Amino acid sequence: MQIKVVEKILAANDAIAAENRELLEKNGILAINIMGSPGAGKTSLAEQTIIALRSRLSTAVIEGDIATRYDAERLAALDIPVVHIATGGECHLDAPMVKQALLQLDLAAADVVLIENVGNLVCPAEYDLGQGKKVVVSSVPEGHDKVEKYPLMFRLADAVVLNKVDTLDAFDFDVQRFEANLKDLNPRAAFFAVSCRTGQGIDAWTDWIRAQSPLPRAGEG
Amino acid sequence: MQIKVVEKILAANDAIAAENRELLEKNGILAINIMGSPGAGKTSLAEQTIIALRSRLSTAVIEGDIATRYDAERLAALDIPVVHIATGGECHLDAPMVKQALLQLDLAAADVVLIENVGNLVCPAEYDLGQGKKVVVSSVPEGHDKVEKYPLMFRLADAVVLNKVDTLDAFDFDVQRFEANLKDLNPRAAFFAVSCRTGQGIDAWTDWIRAQSPLPRAGEG
Repeated sequence: MQIKVVEKILAANDAIAAENRELLEKNGILAINIMGSPGAGKTSLAEQTIIALRSRLSTAVIEGDIATRYDAERLAALDIPVVHIATGGECHLDAPMVKQALLQLDLAAADVVLIENVGNLVCPAEYDLGQGKKVVVSSVPEGHDKVEKYPLMFRLADAVVLNKVDTLDAFDFDVQRFEANLKDLNPRAAFFAVSCRTGQGIDAWTDWIRAQSPLPRAGEG
Repeated sequence: MQIKVVEKILAANDAIAAENRELLEKNGILAINIMGSPGAGKTSLAEQTIIALRSRLSTAVIEGDIATRYDAERLAALDIPVVHIATGGECHLDAPMVKQALLQLDLAAADVVLIENVGNLVCPAEYDLGQGKKVVVSSVPEGHDKVEKYPLMFRLADAVVLNKVDTLDAFDFDVQRFEANLKDLNPRAAFFAVSCRTGQGIDAWTDWIRAQSPLPRAGEG
């Protein structure tokens, strides 16, 4: 009985996720669902991504937070459209929240929509938002065992971005082990080691974004 | 209807939490529910705590993990009783899981039970496990805005441990702001700045544990 209710909620979510997907495809938009632990650097990655893409692509942001508008304000300072979703305690974004946010954006003017999820390495993985790609941001200080300990999100990811590699000297972190665990679990995931602080690795990451459908192919535009 | 089901589950959890609390009190045990983001250092704090207390108090561990036994094995190496709860995807521990684990421990022989929750700064806050004290482990690399962005867990905490202060030079982290935000939100929470790597601050933290009921008062034993 209890499980039936959960199934119903997830089914309702998936139906609206399908509507979001149709809306995004109709407008030729690549939407990226950015997930990861609190403090992994999701907002910093969004910031670096917007800056790196801005000469070629128009980016908008949907910013999910349980409380505070800090991240939304930080990204709005880059002079791009930002819709803030205050989840009011909810541990993840869901498709209905994202649909409401999409309807507040000028979709005809956007190429990429970055959806920053709530900081949580578990629950957001279960909710399809209708995004084109799912990305997990992990970071060096969290430790190299995170792929093994929180497998669902990494299994579903199209790309994994390991952030804060400028701090590798300060932590006992084995990048090869992290990447090998990821390849074992999810061989199709792209992997990027970056530092949002120094800019290291950001080009490779944004090249990957530019190569995704439905964006104009890199080099053609 | 859906909300009613959630209420029922939480009510069932609270009833079993009360049973856990009674069982712990009957055996004169202080149980500490350790919560925090993935990679904040919950296992490292448990490790340092066990070592610091071991000449005076007997500690046992209940170790919650979605996947892998790494943390349980690491703590069992300290030659203490460890019960591993594999949550199988669940984003938090609940009272029934903890009850099962408590029944596998020799409670007559334990003074302190450390319950390491799943790495998640959101969901574990909502589940009473029957613990005596709730502790949140946060860490410098996560950033100083976490109290404001994830308020529920910090509001309910009896103590907050800020870990990895040995890496303050490598991050833009304002300890005073973090502590001031905590005092604004939850003035009764004890605050400890520690490094589980260097041992800094661990004595103050374990002195706090020793001062909690139902343990023999510090200095009397």
